[in-house]
Amino acid sequence: MSRSFLTSFARAERTRYEGLLRELVEIPTVSADPSRKKDILRAAEFAADTIHSFGGTARVLRPAAGHPIVHGAFHHPKAKRTITLYNHLDVQPASVESEPWRTHPFRLVVRDGRYFGRGTTDDKGPALAALFGVRAARECGVPLNIHLLWEFEEEIGSPSLERVVAREGRRLRTNAVVVSDTGWISRRIPSVPSGLRGMQGFSFELVTGKEDRHSGDVGGAARNPIGELLELMYQIHDAKTGRVKIPGFYKRVIPPSRRELEDFVASGFSVAAFKRDNVLTRLRTEEPLDVMKRIWAAPTFEVHGVEGGYVGPGLKAVVPHRAVVKASCRLVPDQEPEEIVGLVKAFARKWNKDVVVRPNGSSPPFRGLTTGPEAEALKRALAFAFGRKPVFVRDGGAIGAAVILRKLLACPVMFLGLSLPEHGYHAPNENFDWRQASGGMLAFAAYLEEMSRIGTGSGPSA
Amino acid sequence: MSRSFLTSFARAERTRYEGLLRELVEIPTVSADPSRKKDILRAAEFAADTIHSFGGTARVLRPAAGHPIVHGAFHHPKAKRTITLYNHLDVQPASVESEPWRTHPFRLVVRDGRYFGRGTTDDKGPALAALFGVRAARECGVPLNIHLLWEFEEEIGSPSLERVVAREGRRLRTNAVVVSDTGWISRRIPSVPSGLRGMQGFSFELVTGKEDRHSGDVGGAARNPIGELLELMYQIHDAKTGRVKIPGFYKRVIPPSRRELEDFVASGFSVAAFKRDNVLTRLRTEEPLDVMKRIWAAPTFEVHGVEGGYVGPGLKAVVPHRAVVKASCRLVPDQEPEEIVGLVKAFARKWNKDVVVRPNGSSPPFRGLTTGPEAEALKRALAFAFGRKPVFVRDGGAIGAAVILRKLLACPVMFLGLSLPEHGYHAPNENFDWRQASGGMLAFAAYLEEMSRIGTGSGPSA
Repeated sequence: MSRSFLTSFARAERTRYEGLLRELVEIPTVSADPSRKKDILRAAEFAADTIHSFGGTARVLRPAAGHPIVHGAFHHPKAKRTITLYNHLDVQPASVESEPWRTHPFRLVVRDGRYFGRGTTDDKGPALAALFGVRAARECGVPLNIHLLWEFEEEIGSPSLERVVAREGRRLRTNAVVVSDTGWISRRIPSVPSGLRGMQGFSFELVTGKEDRHSGDVGGAARNPIGELLELMYQIHDAKTGRVKIPGFYKRVIPPSRRELEDFVASGFSVAAFKRDNVLTRLRTEEPLDVMKRIWAAPTFEVHGVEGGYVGPGLKAVVPHRAVVKASCRLVPDQEPEEIVGLVKAFARKWNKDVVVRPNGSSPPFRGLTTGPEAEALKRALAFAFGRKPVFVRDGGAIGAAVILRKLLACPVMFLGLSLPEHGYHAPNENFDWRQASGGMLAFAAYLEEMSRIGTGSGPSA
Repeated sequence: MSRSFLTSFARAERTRYEGLLRELVEIPTVSADPSRKKDILRAAEFAADTIHSFGGTARVLRPAAGHPIVHGAFHHPKAKRTITLYNHLDVQPASVESEPWRTHPFRLVVRDGRYFGRGTTDDKGPALAALFGVRAARECGVPLNIHLLWEFEEEIGSPSLERVVAREGRRLRTNAVVVSDTGWISRRIPSVPSGLRGMQGFSFELVTGKEDRHSGDVGGAARNPIGELLELMYQIHDAKTGRVKIPGFYKRVIPPSRRELEDFVASGFSVAAFKRDNVLTRLRTEEPLDVMKRIWAAPTFEVHGVEGGYVGPGLKAVVPHRAVVKASCRLVPDQEPEEIVGLVKAFARKWNKDVVVRPNGSSPPFRGLTTGPEAEALKRALAFAFGRKPVFVRDGGAIGAAVILRKLLACPVMFLGLSLPEHGYHAPNENFDWRQASGGMLAFAAYLEEMSRIGTGSGPSA
């Protein structure tokens, strides 16, 4: 597989790549929003049609409830092994009213090789880069069966994936999985996660009446559910330091090893770049290794929003009758989501028995492979595509699919992510770029060729 | 002035009263919403036209900024005194999306003698009852000059009233003011406030970045402005007991006297009715006198809403970049709003120097008259109109106009309110009823006649 063939391939396919990315971005596949169910079905049909047009077969797998999963397959008559590439095509919510989008989140805007729109970097752009990488590998005759799993519930914690994968059984058997939904630390150095934080979402609800009332009438005697939930949040964590005050919360945390910390330091991470890329003016700490430990290797408790009462123009002096706090924990190996739910519920009950705590999405933390034939193949493919050896670091975000697929498919799971810090993952003005898209095509093609050459891996043959 | 004349008068005017109430309710005069400026101007013109059609003169007074005030006047050739009736025609915000309105807040729905719609009881219905009372007094030849002051900024703390009243000077001179914007404790017993709580609004803002970011990427290192503001709110007050923890906050509070507490007990107040009328399922205390002390005679700190982050469907794992808490204090005699602003600002700065505290609307607490000719006239008028002697209690809400008018017009200020607990003051499904409207017409007519008979009061002659 020559580099010049692959770069010509990418250049020739650029218009088609951008056209497909536009079609996908312009379908608002917001999995958290129940009103988008039809859009998501339409996107799944479009994705299946696209896989067909690339010469594969594709099925839209429908769970009993929830959003579909697209399963694509490219068979090769001489293949001895199957490799599965995982991406997701659902996206985070986006609002032009409440967020500072400079372009419409569900219109693709192409500017100087950059692609703006919700889902461009997470994860529609990488999904298409993987598909073009498969196409390039096929044109080079790489003797592999290649499967695609494109999920539509990743942003809500993959609630159906496990059941669907279990139900499909041997049709999904594979020798290795590549999850393509992670980011690099800096544009200069390809990076591969050796661990992912998990997450456990919560809603805390307190109801003390049936309607909001005027504080002149009832203030002082009426309970205030926002006030009481705020107090509970304060009891749960210290927002200034981030420290979680629930006993036992840190019990199972495995701190990063000295070797890992050395890799962190070598990763190209810069506090200034981190602040700039995330448009953060103030951090809890500015010490680089402390920042890396906090975002990659430490659990958190985070309040995302408080519903209830009045937040419109001016001031409306109501005592709210109901409030909901949306919050979540990031989890690190070996914390277990179920155990954290139990700890949080028990703690909340102790402080305020009227608060109803509900789990709201979950994914366990993940410890990845850094050695072995799959890891070596990945390192070589990334170095081939981007001209620089990758480093192994950790990733702060949760990818429930990695955990589920490793468990059910009983095979190695690797990460080949293409997002950059400046791509605005989950943020307004999310973007992707042609350099990462075309480099990604090369990396996937090279990885597939590498994997066709090595012996059967630790998974079952398929 | 005969009771039978007045009851016939009210009966004959019912259709006209309901027609005018409909016109007023269906103009959304939400003073907190800048986009309603034109609606408010339209309502002011309509109010002035209505006063004209009742035989008075009317001017729309425009402040330099802010909403207008309508000044109506009915002159009598033999009048030796002037009485001014104050109401307001602006209303609280109302949202059919976020509040459980059973009918549209800006459509008047008449059902079995009840009037549903935003502003029906606060304060458009009482304003029109006062106007019809003036008409009845005029038809009976009561020798008084009668002025009306109809404000459009009461719900946002009357920011322009003081300047406009000062500017108008002697054109507004009067011997007494009746503020008609208060409520009874129970439908059975007319009640008159001997004191009003004031209020001081606040917004607390904290900005730690320029955009919301994914907590997987930045969670742990990024500051969370919602979390930090929640912590500040907890430092300021104990939401479970309502106790404010800012040193000096209670310093100037005058606790109710034994005589006042006896009046509280005799007022007809019932905890069960209070809970039912305010649809509150849970209170901080269920002991009746403790509840009355809390809502009438004690200051508060209340969180009204928290802006920022994500509160849509599902969960979006963002670290917010900005949050605003809207809160306010109810104040009691002799707390001073400016002093409370100073205490809150200094306390917040001590706990979190990055939080920006802004005052957001203000009105001082008020101690009212319970003796003297004006108080006696009011008692007799209410007993005449409603067949039962009124009691003097306190009111939990702030009416900045009472403070401003007493100061600038240098005359007694009395309260003749018509709202009932079940009217849903400031709440969804706000309503008023014909019994209070027609009784109000009688009470105003009788009060004006009483006031025409007594000697010149403590104010200047006009």
